[in-house]
Amino acid sequence: MSGFVSFVSAGPGDPELLTLKAVARLRAADVVLYDDLAAGAILDHARKGATLVSVGKRAGQPSARQEHVSRLLVDYAATGAGVVRLKSGDAGVFSRLEEEVEAVRAAGIGYEIVPGVTAACAAGAATGIPLTRRHTARRVQFITGADANGELPEDLYWAALADPHAMTAVYMGKRTFPKLAAKLIAQGLSPDTPALLAESVGQINQRLVRTTIQKLAEQLAAENVTATAVILYGALAADHSV
Amino acid sequence: MSGFVSFVSAGPGDPELLTLKAVARLRAADVVLYDDLAAGAILDHARKGATLVSVGKRAGQPSARQEHVSRLLVDYAATGAGVVRLKSGDAGVFSRLEEEVEAVRAAGIGYEIVPGVTAACAAGAATGIPLTRRHTARRVQFITGADANGELPEDLYWAALADPHAMTAVYMGKRTFPKLAAKLIAQGLSPDTPALLAESVGQINQRLVRTTIQKLAEQLAAENVTATAVILYGALAADHSV
Repeated sequence: MSGFVSFVSAGPGDPELLTLKAVARLRAADVVLYDDLAAGAILDHARKGATLVSVGKRAGQPSARQEHVSRLLVDYAATGAGVVRLKSGDAGVFSRLEEEVEAVRAAGIGYEIVPGVTAACAAGAATGIPLTRRHTARRVQFITGADANGELPEDLYWAALADPHAMTAVYMGKRTFPKLAAKLIAQGLSPDTPALLAESVGQINQRLVRTTIQKLAEQLAAENVTATAVILYGALAADHSV
Repeated sequence: MSGFVSFVSAGPGDPELLTLKAVARLRAADVVLYDDLAAGAILDHARKGATLVSVGKRAGQPSARQEHVSRLLVDYAATGAGVVRLKSGDAGVFSRLEEEVEAVRAAGIGYEIVPGVTAACAAGAATGIPLTRRHTARRVQFITGADANGELPEDLYWAALADPHAMTAVYMGKRTFPKLAAKLIAQGLSPDTPALLAESVGQINQRLVRTTIQKLAEQLAAENVTATAVILYGALAADHSV
């Protein structure tokens, strides 16, 4: 018996932003492991009779949860099942893909990675903002605002992040953005640098807020952070649709 | 008569990496403007009778070509047509989306942007390399190796690009990579820094080469550059599948 694991990118939450390959893998899967709150319409592509396993709400420490997911992947595949591990956004961007791939490899199980639409690209498209622009935004960079403990990583390259000529996307960064903004401003980035908060892109509760890094930091410091979001700041193009 | 323009991301070339939304827009389009050499199987989604217009091989200067594409978009939409402007990869990443959006807006024509799978994500997935990893690759950045004249941009942030703790993806950078690598090494990045050349990802002529920045620079200096590629370098994960 040899199973197979497809690490499948589900895109930013809009079911229409699944790729054809992701749909094909969902249709063929015996088992689907998912942790996306917005997975409803996406999981509808799984065949009737497939085993759907939610792994997103397990209590306890992140590392314990991660080990549990890796064990489940190996255990299901060891039964000979075709397993889809659904990851939100692009599986290779801030999704802890590495740990799960290592576990599957260590168990001698075959796997593939199906890329997808990452949240920064979806946020830019929803707002009408290209992530790159000739002359004015020649570098785009993605960081996470939450380390394994949910805190802003301490060892980021602050000067590179405070570059007003780059477009920066911050994943999982709503809660720590006030701290990040303070670091950026201390590095010399103007408090008036344009920023965009993009929540639940392409979903019914989509929210796009065009503001500045300082105002966004003040707003988020006062807000109860719930919905997932990506924050863009820096060399943002003209404000078209927000 | 009021037409509409959908700027549709076609993904990295593998027809299976189209999104469902891209397929729906292609099916509904009256006119499709495309410039992707690999567009064959992707264009098959257009309905019979749709007007397919190649804009990718026009002779002359890039700026003249760009103006021509913008004029075509406006002219077709002005007839009341539903126009799809197909862009390879993600439309917001190094595709000169800005100029075309401005032209459409200036003409008072409605538009949307459909995001897609960008080449760096596809290259990482094909190779089994997550673009980000906890602790070791917390920042990912994309640059272009070709300015409007096809040369390496002069004003890049070299220190940020020479950061061994970031994962960097270079788009359209094969021809200028020897020059880029020399700049990075002069900035202190080790010549032995891992690099990956990913050509024609997901297509029949896919080529993945795992090497170092110095060796890749030597190889590309001696090579006739033809196929499109993305180059990854920096904090690359363990070499799994190449």
